[in-house]
Amino acid sequence: MTAPTLEEDLEDALDGPAAVDGVGVPGIRRARAWLTRAAEPGSVGLWRWVDAVGPVAAVRALRAGTAPDGARALVGARAAEDTSLADLRRAERCGARLVLPEDDEWPALPLHALALAVAGRDGEAEQADRTTALVPPVALWVRGTGRLDEVVDRSVAVVGSRASTAYGEHVAGELGHELGERGWTVVSGGAYGVDVAAHRGALAAGAPTVAVLACGVDRAYPAAHSTVFSRIVDSGGLLVSEWPPGAAPHWHRFLVRNRLIAGLTRGTVVVEAAARSGAQATARRAQRLGKAVLVVPGPVTSAMSVGCHDLLRDEDVGARLVSNAAQVVEAVGGLGVDLADPPPRPGQARDGLTDLARRVLDACPVRLGVSAERLAAVAGCDPLEAMRVLPGLEVGGLVQWTGTGWRLAPPPERARDG
Amino acid sequence: MTAPTLEEDLEDALDGPAAVDGVGVPGIRRARAWLTRAAEPGSVGLWRWVDAVGPVAAVRALRAGTAPDGARALVGARAAEDTSLADLRRAERCGARLVLPEDDEWPALPLHALALAVAGRDGEAEQADRTTALVPPVALWVRGTGRLDEVVDRSVAVVGSRASTAYGEHVAGELGHELGERGWTVVSGGAYGVDVAAHRGALAAGAPTVAVLACGVDRAYPAAHSTVFSRIVDSGGLLVSEWPPGAAPHWHRFLVRNRLIAGLTRGTVVVEAAARSGAQATARRAQRLGKAVLVVPGPVTSAMSVGCHDLLRDEDVGARLVSNAAQVVEAVGGLGVDLADPPPRPGQARDGLTDLARRVLDACPVRLGVSAERLAAVAGCDPLEAMRVLPGLEVGGLVQWTGTGWRLAPPPERARDG
Repeated sequence: MTAPTLEEDLEDALDGPAAVDGVGVPGIRRARAWLTRAAEPGSVGLWRWVDAVGPVAAVRALRAGTAPDGARALVGARAAEDTSLADLRRAERCGARLVLPEDDEWPALPLHALALAVAGRDGEAEQADRTTALVPPVALWVRGTGRLDEVVDRSVAVVGSRASTAYGEHVAGELGHELGERGWTVVSGGAYGVDVAAHRGALAAGAPTVAVLACGVDRAYPAAHSTVFSRIVDSGGLLVSEWPPGAAPHWHRFLVRNRLIAGLTRGTVVVEAAARSGAQATARRAQRLGKAVLVVPGPVTSAMSVGCHDLLRDEDVGARLVSNAAQVVEAVGGLGVDLADPPPRPGQARDGLTDLARRVLDACPVRLGVSAERLAAVAGCDPLEAMRVLPGLEVGGLVQWTGTGWRLAPPPERARDG
Repeated sequence: MTAPTLEEDLEDALDGPAAVDGVGVPGIRRARAWLTRAAEPGSVGLWRWVDAVGPVAAVRALRAGTAPDGARALVGARAAEDTSLADLRRAERCGARLVLPEDDEWPALPLHALALAVAGRDGEAEQADRTTALVPPVALWVRGTGRLDEVVDRSVAVVGSRASTAYGEHVAGELGHELGERGWTVVSGGAYGVDVAAHRGALAAGAPTVAVLACGVDRAYPAAHSTVFSRIVDSGGLLVSEWPPGAAPHWHRFLVRNRLIAGLTRGTVVVEAAARSGAQATARRAQRLGKAVLVVPGPVTSAMSVGCHDLLRDEDVGARLVSNAAQVVEAVGGLGVDLADPPPRPGQARDGLTDLARRVLDACPVRLGVSAERLAAVAGCDPLEAMRVLPGLEVGGLVQWTGTGWRLAPPPERARDG
């Protein structure tokens, strides 16, 4: 059986958005898939036109050469090409899908800020600066099993320098871990340095994390992070991209992509940033989108904190200094919901503990497991005593054996997929 | 010849404030000297009463037992004692003097903020909290040759933790040095840690610096800083105290003293501060006095920066993040005067330089001298070439041989005593 042409699928779509079972795909899906390859995202003019006439009519007009000049110029020779069906199937093979604004899982609420921004602007002026325009995506390629809207509902961007210092990576990792433990999704760019440290921290907490990529979701860029990307997908997190499978990570795509990191989240935390850096640009976009701009300070002697301090000194940005995850959650959390410290671990399990067990429990680190000997040293008891109480603490769900050591168990009340 | 009694000097003062040559001292001076020993500073009620009736009448009333109850209670049994003449002579022997509000060199302009604060407050309420009340001093014991008003005219407080880290001391030292080079006086408390690092930085720049002490100006507290205190006096700086010579550094005196550090300066820079620390308290007083509150951030992983970050997060304080001396000067400097970078070194001397000489000059550090070999490495030339141009740069007043290495000469245009 031959697959239907793009025009055949679009013809069905004009009759109604129902799927053509088994052979074609709904025309709207195929139209938006085609647009993600035919037109680089970030164009206010194109987005507005597609929004006005609808994706199916827009693609038909582009294919037929009857689209407005601006749209035709952007698409150019790619108007004659069509790999939309292949792209959708390629996505399916790697466990990805195309999420449309028409889908239930579209993160309409966070992205509403981008839609508002594009509504309030002069398209002509924006056209000249496509890399920084605040414009919604026409669709998102998403790899992973979680619902996009649910995973990013309570999310924070953690961004920073690729050339980060040990300090920046430590802070990003701790933030990622603690935000994950508090039930917040860390969104970042999957890049070297601060980005991957934040992702790794969230992964260590067993929390979903989202990498918004500047290439296809089936590609690992940088290649060194392919394991991290796999772990993100396996841990209930998502890989998200505006570009179709196989798309290459061109430089300008990173700049265009950055607005999505700010747009999908409730706030952006800048961990380390050099002067005039991409992380600063992301923070300024978050501010333009009305989202919280949070900045981690660092030593004034560190070039990697100059951009952070510049942001904190810039009154137009209105950035807020944050030192830890609790302060981040306080800034982005719901009014009155996230103001306090995280709820203590369940009372019942902890209440019955002996003084010794309590001391050993208090000695357990949050993240990296340590030996019973080390716990005993911190708790001020004999290693054998520590080893005696640890199994009980494990059964009570209070501590966890990581394979190499003991650490606190993540709070059971954290919703993993909501 | 017998020295006149306090009452005899005060009697003269009532007839007019002229000095009794050779034997007595002007009554106002002796009255205020007596008050600095008889009454602990920081009492709003006492200050107001002295301000209303005048120091001579106030002391006569206290001596005669006819003063208001509040004042009598504060002075207590000390009303019967008089070491004022001995205190004034002891001061003279160590190169100190008592500076009165009636003197030309009284820093009336900066201290006006304290006078305003005391005018706007309820004396009864303040009486309960003498350690933090914003009240002017009745007089200041000053050791050093500079005029107090001139030395503190363009001054900045640099304060912070005694238990500072290497980072805090480095930053305080650099700030002290660069503020000194820019013609600003660093005021601090002479304590361990940030205080002394800031003083030392200013001293290294050959700039006057002021230590406001919580004991007599003839005492070195801490004793380890006696050399620093001597160097302060020898470098055109000042030791300042509200307490008479010989007074001991009681703990509560440090708290009372802190308001003067904020009060004498145009702004306070907090370099490192633990949570709920004295440096934070000084910063909050600077804010209540309408002076700039400037805060140096640090690693969020450092307990010694927690207080700094708390200040920066507290919107009521309105603190401004600063990373270097230029940003400090921009915040406290005169409008339009200090906004730019410091003026370049004199054009004539620098203009005629060869490319090689210019490169060597640019390689010279500001503070610690380095070898010609090191300069050559930075300038990208042969050590012999560097050694060839250095004498010319020295004659031109552009570089300086420190005894151990070469560094930039301090700008000749900086006023050392004004």
